[in-house]
Amino acid sequence: MCPTLAFAASGETGATDVAQILLALVILLVAAKLGGSLVVRAGQPAVLGELVFGIIIGNLHLLGINSFEFIKTDDTVRILSEIGVTLLLFQVGLESDLGKLMQVGTSSLVVATIGVVCPFGLGFLVSSVFMPQESVYVHLFVGATLCATSVGVTARVLMDLGWLKTTEARIILGAAVVDDVQGLIILAVVSGVIQAASTGGKALSTWAIVLIILKALLFLSGALIIGRWIAPKVFHIASRLSASDLLLTTALAICFSFAYLAACIGLAPIVGAFAAGLILDEVHWRTFRERGEHSVEELVKPLTAFLVPVFFVVMGSRVEIRSFAHVEVLGLAAVVTLAAILGKLACGIGALEKGLDRLSIGIGMVPRAEVGLIFASIGTRLRLYGEPLVSESTFSVMIIMVILTTLVTPVGLKWSIARAARKKTKSGEVSHREGNTH
Amino acid sequence: MCPTLAFAASGETGATDVAQILLALVILLVAAKLGGSLVVRAGQPAVLGELVFGIIIGNLHLLGINSFEFIKTDDTVRILSEIGVTLLLFQVGLESDLGKLMQVGTSSLVVATIGVVCPFGLGFLVSSVFMPQESVYVHLFVGATLCATSVGVTARVLMDLGWLKTTEARIILGAAVVDDVQGLIILAVVSGVIQAASTGGKALSTWAIVLIILKALLFLSGALIIGRWIAPKVFHIASRLSASDLLLTTALAICFSFAYLAACIGLAPIVGAFAAGLILDEVHWRTFRERGEHSVEELVKPLTAFLVPVFFVVMGSRVEIRSFAHVEVLGLAAVVTLAAILGKLACGIGALEKGLDRLSIGIGMVPRAEVGLIFASIGTRLRLYGEPLVSESTFSVMIIMVILTTLVTPVGLKWSIARAARKKTKSGEVSHREGNTH
Repeated sequence: MCPTLAFAASGETGATDVAQILLALVILLVAAKLGGSLVVRAGQPAVLGELVFGIIIGNLHLLGINSFEFIKTDDTVRILSEIGVTLLLFQVGLESDLGKLMQVGTSSLVVATIGVVCPFGLGFLVSSVFMPQESVYVHLFVGATLCATSVGVTARVLMDLGWLKTTEARIILGAAVVDDVQGLIILAVVSGVIQAASTGGKALSTWAIVLIILKALLFLSGALIIGRWIAPKVFHIASRLSASDLLLTTALAICFSFAYLAACIGLAPIVGAFAAGLILDEVHWRTFRERGEHSVEELVKPLTAFLVPVFFVVMGSRVEIRSFAHVEVLGLAAVVTLAAILGKLACGIGALEKGLDRLSIGIGMVPRAEVGLIFASIGTRLRLYGEPLVSESTFSVMIIMVILTTLVTPVGLKWSIARAARKKTKSGEVSHREGNTH
Repeated sequence: MCPTLAFAASGETGATDVAQILLALVILLVAAKLGGSLVVRAGQPAVLGELVFGIIIGNLHLLGINSFEFIKTDDTVRILSEIGVTLLLFQVGLESDLGKLMQVGTSSLVVATIGVVCPFGLGFLVSSVFMPQESVYVHLFVGATLCATSVGVTARVLMDLGWLKTTEARIILGAAVVDDVQGLIILAVVSGVIQAASTGGKALSTWAIVLIILKALLFLSGALIIGRWIAPKVFHIASRLSASDLLLTTALAICFSFAYLAACIGLAPIVGAFAAGLILDEVHWRTFRERGEHSVEELVKPLTAFLVPVFFVVMGSRVEIRSFAHVEVLGLAAVVTLAAILGKLACGIGALEKGLDRLSIGIGMVPRAEVGLIFASIGTRLRLYGEPLVSESTFSVMIIMVILTTLVTPVGLKWSIARAARKKTKSGEVSHREGNTH
């Protein structure tokens, strides 16, 4: 793509791929801002435009334009975008309050549990009814795929709409963390059961499952309790170093460490980043602020401004419009998607506090995004009696489900939040959001 | 390295390498700040500590610790670090004034030319005297390798010491751009001559050389003239979009586009990024500032704070201490390094303005860094009568030269700047730097 000179130094040490990444970043940033701007004018959250422009870029090959194909497959672009979503959840964590999150902890737990049980049941049911030829293990796997919420899109919409400080947002974020742990357990159990069936061996032992749960709980409690105790000490040591930019660097090092540790035990890196954001507090960097430095929130903003749109455009670009071309799977895809959406909408009733907008909570839990794709792709690699468990057409169904649940969330959440705001204004209640804007 | 669960979702789609990059970033950031802090206390610029701690990390394998080896070879780490140095030169460009740079343009041109002719001559001479067994083409190549300055380290030191607004700094930066163009030409000519000798064909045609020069001049003048004319229009369009973070995104898109175009014609991406920074001006984003947004300089700072130290630690990590273990090449390496340093020190006399600290200008042009490595590695791949032109031991010599010229610069520049400041204070002159601090 880059017309290199015969003797160009840059072509000789792989510097060309730096050029290619720079080009990719230009395309992604321009697409994000044009797409975002268009949908914002149409009254939708910017993230929808980023996803849609991503889909356009990712499918230009259908028009014979192949220049942008590398964006979908390049490892560095993918990792940059994933650093972006890691920083997004770190930022969301920074702007959240652990104490207030804990106050609605029971609600989060109930919401997450309903949001796992209902989609699992509905998915199993739909799969049994519409794919009677498939084995019970496929039904189990379809059910499992519908369980895991991916909170990136929701977090972004809540942030765009300034809704992050509401009780509903707290319940959603807490539930997303619980949901990730539950998803991990379900994936392990279902995979174990299927592997056991396939090899005729023993199913996954109870001990293995307990171990997964223990590790996850250990990480989360460790992060929140030990992390909260160690973080001030780390900042104190950092404040005594003589290098520059120590506040941002220390915060990033903590964020990336937590994300790394989360990934090590099988949780999503974003769960670790969110936990890191939660435990960091304004008081930890008082020494730095007294020297006139910016706060961590302000320092992280340019990083997320750069990399978060990259994440959503890249995510959009991975959508193959061709998956919709399989007419025979479209009907099934519609039913599975409906099950996926209804199953999560139901979880809103798990929120225990009074006067909440339970519909918004349900919609916030709808997107499956990359977590759903990970489940589905594992399914294609699992083998039952030598055959892939998840057939190509079932995989297409899963992909369509993931695309639709992701795209429907910004629109749905924007609508339901506006609706809730109108209702509250009408009933004369003083909403906490109004309290924030004054 | 990351103890993954058997069924860990993250292990299934390559998400593990995101975890690995996160770990690498933690290690690099911590090393940068510890190393930087230690040398700052010892009165040296932070970049020296980042390089030294990078060398330590990169050579832990000598102690049997191989956990950090991936940092040296991972493509994403390398590209992240190169985005870092691209942003550094963009930032330097933003803080420089094109008009004032042009005022010393003649000096820059003369400095760059002397700084290419002297090292080339000295390199050729040293190679002829100490390696009489080698062909004239090897001497040519050694000479060529000593030509190209890599301005990253110098720019960083100038920035750390608050010396970026001095006339000396302007001359160095301008000369670095000229130098990159001249280096490109020399590399093309020398490679062409050697290939012609090897294949018995014609030498590189004059037309091909003219084409290289034309392309480089076209890019630079295009960037500075057309870019300067288009940039305000781009910002004006951006200011009318409805997305968020438009100022930073637009500036980054311009920076990355310029860096990409520079790479396409064979110049270093950092030359493009520097040109982008030069043409962008406070007045372009007046509309944004009036809305209360931060300036581009402020928005770029967290990005460079994150990625620039990554670049220097990674650069250090690539230094193989083992290259110094070849006792037979150490003598030659010492002589070639001396030629490299003296050749560039001489160029300071090319600065025409009165009252300048010519020694600092010379020292500022000393580091060869990655440009020297690129030259040397091309040499190992060029074949003369079927044999590699540059032997392994000559390559080791080049690497040692690159390491030493890079490490000597922060120390030398810090010393010479302090010396110049003392001299000026003594002689009662009001230096421009003092003018700045008041």
